[in-house]
Amino acid sequence: MTEFGKVGIVVRNIARADAAAVERLGRHGVATVHEAQGRAGLLKPWMRPVWPRAAACGTAVTVLAHPGDNWMLHVAAEVIRPGDVVVVGVTTDNDDGMFGDLLATSYRSRGARGLIIDAGVRDACSLADMQFPVWSRAIHARGTVKATLGSVNVPVVCAGMLVNPGDVVVADDDGVVIVPRERAAAVGDAAEARERKEEATRKRLAAGELGLDIYGMREALAKAGLKYVD
Amino acid sequence: MTEFGKVGIVVRNIARADAAAVERLGRHGVATVHEAQGRAGLLKPWMRPVWPRAAACGTAVTVLAHPGDNWMLHVAAEVIRPGDVVVVGVTTDNDDGMFGDLLATSYRSRGARGLIIDAGVRDACSLADMQFPVWSRAIHARGTVKATLGSVNVPVVCAGMLVNPGDVVVADDDGVVIVPRERAAAVGDAAEARERKEEATRKRLAAGELGLDIYGMREALAKAGLKYVD
Amino acid sequence: MTEFGKVGIVVRNIARADAAAVERLGRHGVATVHEAQGRAGLLKPWMRPVWPRAAACGTAVTVLAHPGDNWMLHVAAEVIRPGDVVVVGVTTDNDDGMFGDLLATSYRSRGARGLIIDAGVRDACSLADMQFPVWSRAIHARGTVKATLGSVNVPVVCAGMLVNPGDVVVADDDGVVIVPRERAAAVGDAAEARERKEEATRKRLAAGELGLDIYGMREALAKAGLKYVD
Amino acid sequence: MTEFGKVGIVVRNIARADAAAVERLGRHGVATVHEAQGRAGLLKPWMRPVWPRAAACGTAVTVLAHPGDNWMLHVAAEVIRPGDVVVVGVTTDNDDGMFGDLLATSYRSRGARGLIIDAGVRDACSLADMQFPVWSRAIHARGTVKATLGSVNVPVVCAGMLVNPGDVVVADDDGVVIVPRERAAAVGDAAEARERKEEATRKRLAAGELGLDIYGMREALAKAGLKYVD
Amino acid sequence: MTEFGKVGIVVRNIARADAAAVERLGRHGVATVHEAQGRAGLLKPWMRPVWPRAAACGTAVTVLAHPGDNWMLHVAAEVIRPGDVVVVGVTTDNDDGMFGDLLATSYRSRGARGLIIDAGVRDACSLADMQFPVWSRAIHARGTVKATLGSVNVPVVCAGMLVNPGDVVVADDDGVVIVPRERAAAVGDAAEARERKEEATRKRLAAGELGLDIYGMREALAKAGLKYVD
Amino acid sequence: MTEFGKVGIVVRNIARADAAAVERLGRHGVATVHEAQGRAGLLKPWMRPVWPRAAACGTAVTVLAHPGDNWMLHVAAEVIRPGDVVVVGVTTDNDDGMFGDLLATSYRSRGARGLIIDAGVRDACSLADMQFPVWSRAIHARGTVKATLGSVNVPVVCAGMLVNPGDVVVADDDGVVIVPRERAAAVGDAAEARERKEEATRKRLAAGELGLDIYGMREALAKAGLKYVD
Repeated sequence: MTEFGKVGIVVRNIARADAAAVERLGRHGVATVHEAQGRAGLLKPWMRPVWPRAAACGTAVTVLAHPGDNWMLHVAAEVIRPGDVVVVGVTTDNDDGMFGDLLATSYRSRGARGLIIDAGVRDACSLADMQFPVWSRAIHARGTVKATLGSVNVPVVCAGMLVNPGDVVVADDDGVVIVPRERAAAVGDAAEARERKEEATRKRLAAGELGLDIYGMREALAKAGLKYVD
Repeated sequence: MTEFGKVGIVVRNIARADAAAVERLGRHGVATVHEAQGRAGLLKPWMRPVWPRAAACGTAVTVLAHPGDNWMLHVAAEVIRPGDVVVVGVTTDNDDGMFGDLLATSYRSRGARGLIIDAGVRDACSLADMQFPVWSRAIHARGTVKATLGSVNVPVVCAGMLVNPGDVVVADDDGVVIVPRERAAAVGDAAEARERKEEATRKRLAAGELGLDIYGMREALAKAGLKYVD
Repeated sequence: MTEFGKVGIVVRNIARADAAAVERLGRHGVATVHEAQGRAGLLKPWMRPVWPRAAACGTAVTVLAHPGDNWMLHVAAEVIRPGDVVVVGVTTDNDDGMFGDLLATSYRSRGARGLIIDAGVRDACSLADMQFPVWSRAIHARGTVKATLGSVNVPVVCAGMLVNPGDVVVADDDGVVIVPRERAAAVGDAAEARERKEEATRKRLAAGELGLDIYGMREALAKAGLKYVD
Repeated sequence: MTEFGKVGIVVRNIARADAAAVERLGRHGVATVHEAQGRAGLLKPWMRPVWPRAAACGTAVTVLAHPGDNWMLHVAAEVIRPGDVVVVGVTTDNDDGMFGDLLATSYRSRGARGLIIDAGVRDACSLADMQFPVWSRAIHARGTVKATLGSVNVPVVCAGMLVNPGDVVVADDDGVVIVPRERAAAVGDAAEARERKEEATRKRLAAGELGLDIYGMREALAKAGLKYVD
Repeated sequence: MTEFGKVGIVVRNIARADAAAVERLGRHGVATVHEAQGRAGLLKPWMRPVWPRAAACGTAVTVLAHPGDNWMLHVAAEVIRPGDVVVVGVTTDNDDGMFGDLLATSYRSRGARGLIIDAGVRDACSLADMQFPVWSRAIHARGTVKATLGSVNVPVVCAGMLVNPGDVVVADDDGVVIVPRERAAAVGDAAEARERKEEATRKRLAAGELGLDIYGMREALAKAGLKYVD
Repeated sequence: MTEFGKVGIVVRNIARADAAAVERLGRHGVATVHEAQGRAGLLKPWMRPVWPRAAACGTAVTVLAHPGDNWMLHVAAEVIRPGDVVVVGVTTDNDDGMFGDLLATSYRSRGARGLIIDAGVRDACSLADMQFPVWSRAIHARGTVKATLGSVNVPVVCAGMLVNPGDVVVADDDGVVIVPRERAAAVGDAAEARERKEEATRKRLAAGELGLDIYGMREALAKAGLKYVD
């Protein structure tokens, strides 16, 4: 694996998570996948979808960029393969609109399924019209320069989470979660098991049963000293 | 009334605001109710509805919880009565998703009309599909533990406002306002009077009359020294 | 031009940008206009539309107001002319709901095309129902007093940008941009040229061509030292 | 007790916590007092001392004020008694400098031991020179008006915590904690016991013993599944 | 005057406020100067001194810079004259350390009295050791590039305030205030008058008199409806 | 290397950066080290020293903890070796005071040189009195529970930066920078070279020479189109 955060490098060929495992993960929501891998892998809550009900699942092409500079996002287009989600970490907190409808058009034509960027984006209405899924920390028209080298497909931190090229990215209205490439199948299994269990619980709750009883919490609560008064 | 912020207690039976008064308050928006009780009772502006045009009105079941710990939200389900809105204060600022579609299913089956939580929630799309109204400070998939005791139905501070069990909660796209239980009827009267007056004003403004004239502001402005120049 | 930030003055008659130039600018999005005038003129990214897909273009009537005090917004109504957009700067950061459906009714009846306010607004649902376009830093029910003089039609700073009365205001889902009155026609020309060029680029990108080639970036990247590895 | 958040009232005489209990609490830091009353009573972490190593302990005179309006802070001066700490809640988040060296001079001459204000203050250097202890959310020169009624000595929320007139306020570099009036003596006892215990622990830790052993954590960690690897 | 926010220009010679007027303003604190010019001219409260008790007063050399790019700060050094304070506005919110001890050494050697920058700075300890006064929005080690043109001595917005080249800048622990060049002498007069008056008030307050009586507030409070209860 | 972010593991023995290389890096400030490794490795600017002029350099012992839960900080004490700096990443943004004077006493007795924690700390005055260097995102008295497993000496993200056990941590008033273990010596060389060069530049700048000339910027500025006007 290339060195974390190394600048000035484009890695053309990366190992990607198994396509079948990615498809299976894509059937679950972010909350389920996050639980299924032991409450890990989430990006910070400031990462929000640009349009309602956006959802995406794919393999990470990573980008390390500088604030207000989207040069590397153009470089990344060339290494996108169908099924990828581009994940952009930025060296400094920045809300500039580093991605818009032109890059979205390019990424889509290369087969990208979405973008995760710890900065701003613009052309929000066009992105919604195109139904190109984007998660960002801001929406802002501010344009960018193309002046400083970053990298493509090196490990990066995006919104507080380490992302390695080829990892699985799952994103929906609850945020974004990363599943390490090697764990994709195992987490998929766990997510399916969890969903089956939740479905059963949902029915019992809908019928008026209490979580206190379904999950057997009463004893632990009493032991912890909870007192009921009228 | 139980002591403010006391930990480790569940109060099963609380005095609730008069049901008829609650219904009347529910016919008005948050802005009107807030004005009608003398510009008081509002939660902080960071409390936002999870889905557009959500609206709720009911009697408060209060919860005191710890960051990243939703144990007490399960405990609260048992004391919900039809017409309640659950109001959750948290001891520390926290964006974890402490409430999702399973708890919403449970709360709805018990008759709850909504949730106000000074923390995060998850399963945002499902909450919208269920049309279960929720106001929160964040949307995030991060799950929670069940480890530390809080309380149910003690007075709490939620998003900067004191909430007593049984108070009226009115919430819409403009935020959340609390009406003390004893004042529900009086505030309902004032809200109706205000709305009638506003309706008349609205017609005059729509016809092109100026607020300066309708509200008789010109004299006060001149006295304060306002100068018009061409 | 009246002194920047001067308090206690209402300027009744202002020079407004040429109506035809305003119409032409209104055909372009905020991102395009911002680029067309050399990446200048944008308000801060915290200014967001109150309802999705709001868009507005008009000539600025400026207001200088105090936190939690909307007296001057009433004063401004009288000097609005058809085609204006009211732009409100506030002396201190404040999220109170200084504008709601009554003022919107009044402004619309006077011919206003929208409101830009570096504070909060309320009656968010009504504003959406009316399709009255508003950009603000917050949505909150908190009402305001009418106690302290500000000004109307003096130069103000709104969300970090200088706005002179009569300037062109263009706003959409990407934010808000100001075009100085004298530059309206020239920026309109540049915006049209830019849009034509972008349309051609969009087609090539959609066909799978790379920005690297369209924009001729490869040489500069190599010169900067970018290395490709497999 | 007067109604929470009621506007337009000054309560002249309030029951104050027992002076001896206040003195005892003042010997402990905020962290200790907070633990001693069951991890409750803390104001939000944004409340910071204006000058380093400020510390104060006294009985609360409460003020409810409006953003950018310090009228009620002048009203409060008259009801201060020696040993009081003035606690100011504001209806809206605001950073204006609502308190400076003149009010500090006045408060000190009336016997006040400090100020806790969920807004801004100014004359920061003078406050340090006077050694008048102040905790605030901001330091800013912005002056205020005197236009809108609030209250003095009604229950208020300050920085997320309910404060009743006469409660004990303890403040130092770790923040501000409120002890309800009736609990002052009991919390003082608990604080003393805690401090004795901590002193013994401190010596053992300084000698190189591990908290793992002193607090007997090893078994619980193993039970929870912690694994050691080399 | 050069056009607001124009990019790519350095104005070598600017009209500066009268030196004697600057000296007089420098004898007063920011709070006093701000009041003396009618509560106007303040930068946002996020602008804080890098070291305690820093104070500066001088004439503005303005810089328009891009985030993470301090090229223009080097350009500005050449046009500094003794008695200037450099004021830097940035096109996008940014915390990078755009100024450190080398530039401080250069600025001091040219006669600059301080720096006001709506971005980050670094070498905080060295700046304190040099006693070079700096106000910034952040302290951070992040270095910058030199890639994009801005301007020197065009009007800019810095931390929400319009600053024209040659204006007076007064800064201390309460923040930063701008006095327009033409108003320097008049504001100086007003500041002196205000300070004399405050000195007299301070003595009366220290003697235990109440602001209620000194400022004659009792009647207005009663008229507004304030009620005293025991 | 153990898996990133893995929960429930304590790695007792880690490879640490070469002691001599650590000492050499400790002679330089954070800004210099950050530049010397190509403008990489910095934690976010919200990480600030608890007391002025704190400085620390050592090898990282990493901790992964949960919000409001400092169990793992006790576990970490046992694996500290003289010369280590403890670096704590937290799964969710949190300001609770997870570290205070007791843990500082313990860490110091084990030979720790400081603490970097992306959460709050308390006993700020005692930490200053002990001269135990701490960088945190907040200071707050709020205590914590010991309920949920994290890990010690697995790779973590702290304040936006990946930290591997054994990496070098350099911290001062400008923030915190991480140097990967294998690069310690090379970055030390680069830092020394940089410092020598800066010292020479500093003398020339102090003598009044301009950076424009020393760095040879004039040609590039002219080429970029910068215009000088009088």
